[in-house]
Amino acid sequence: MSVVLYDLKGKDGLRYSPFGWRARMALAHKGIEPENVAVGFTEKDRVAFSGQPLVPVIVDRKHGDKVVFDSFQIACYLDEAYPGKPLMDSPQARSLSQFFGNWLGMAVLPAMAGMIVNDVFQRVRAEDQPYFRESREKRFGKKLEEIPIGREQRLIAFRATLEPLRALLRQQDFVCGAAPAYADYMAFGTFQWPRIASDFEILQQDDPIHAWRQRMIGLFDNLGDRARIGPTN
Amino acid sequence: MSVVLYDLKGKDGLRYSPFGWRARMALAHKGIEPENVAVGFTEKDRVAFSGQPLVPVIVDRKHGDKVVFDSFQIACYLDEAYPGKPLMDSPQARSLSQFFGNWLGMAVLPAMAGMIVNDVFQRVRAEDQPYFRESREKRFGKKLEEIPIGREQRLIAFRATLEPLRALLRQQDFVCGAAPAYADYMAFGTFQWPRIASDFEILQQDDPIHAWRQRMIGLFDNLGDRARIGPTN
Repeated sequence: MSVVLYDLKGKDGLRYSPFGWRARMALAHKGIEPENVAVGFTEKDRVAFSGQPLVPVIVDRKHGDKVVFDSFQIACYLDEAYPGKPLMDSPQARSLSQFFGNWLGMAVLPAMAGMIVNDVFQRVRAEDQPYFRESREKRFGKKLEEIPIGREQRLIAFRATLEPLRALLRQQDFVCGAAPAYADYMAFGTFQWPRIASDFEILQQDDPIHAWRQRMIGLFDNLGDRARIGPTN
Repeated sequence: MSVVLYDLKGKDGLRYSPFGWRARMALAHKGIEPENVAVGFTEKDRVAFSGQPLVPVIVDRKHGDKVVFDSFQIACYLDEAYPGKPLMDSPQARSLSQFFGNWLGMAVLPAMAGMIVNDVFQRVRAEDQPYFRESREKRFGKKLEEIPIGREQRLIAFRATLEPLRALLRQQDFVCGAAPAYADYMAFGTFQWPRIASDFEILQQDDPIHAWRQRMIGLFDNLGDRARIGPTN
């Protein structure tokens, strides 16, 4: 427990933050089992010590209680402080992982949000729901209940958007090649979000991305399932 | 002239193939100035020796007249045969370059084609125009002259599609980081195509991608301009 991971807490201890999953998988990749601290949407003061309000945040007790926030910065820090088994194995890999993260964040995540945000709302703690409703309705410019309308039609275009990733996973087991690394964890976080926070099926059973997600869930002794519910401290 | 590069030939010796530019820039990255052979759309028999009909193809005279086709395979081959100054500096960089190429090929190039294909037609050699018209009209399911209709409107969505690349180039000079490498050449080939084959301005002057393209043109003693017209052999 040399590292503390502050991650988002949902209803009944559910863990579905895409960025929290990136940090959790990156830690597991380095063989680190963190002490988990769960933070609700309206408990941002609990990470105020990091100088900003967002999770994930890590505190590395082994290295002078070093505080790092932002999932990408956490990955960079882990490669620096724990250089074995790199998350990103070269300068180019780091730049291209950032591009990949941009693509996930701009082309994939917003379209996903438009389909599942009202399901996520059902899995937000009751005390956080007013904040969640207000912030998401402002972002989308409509009522939470109206956002998913027509999602079955949008799902078709959404699946087409995923083709650059699908084509890669048709030819190799992981985004990073024969073994998973940080770009895999970035994508996994993104696809864990609808998997844990919604019943709406984003991926078809015969999609190579679905098979990859199954492989990802199985990593680190099934961490993708084991950690779907965490302590509610 | 230890390497021969077979590339697509346009009207008046114009060179605009996105994949030809990838190979040309990759060779320049390795310090190789190739002997250029220009091949028209209807001269595919000239690369029949490679066992397939498409350019670019390289023949490496320094290594037993080794024949390599497909721009990505050419890059992989060059890193193997000329290991100094890698085009892709790690296994992850190679995988993520492939993802980047998938994105360019699936999210960027087809949308570009829908805007400029009729301009390209004007820059295809007269003897190749019937082939070009027939193949492109079949691909788009409409007359060449009808394909660009409404492109000013589509351009707005197209520029939004480029945001993952733009965000990366806001924070660093090249796709690969502080210096250009293969992913830069992939993207450069894609943006050289409309630049040379069309007068339709794809990029706004204040777009970070425009500034990056200018930097790319200037590389290798201005190769991006020097080689826009080649021999018509």
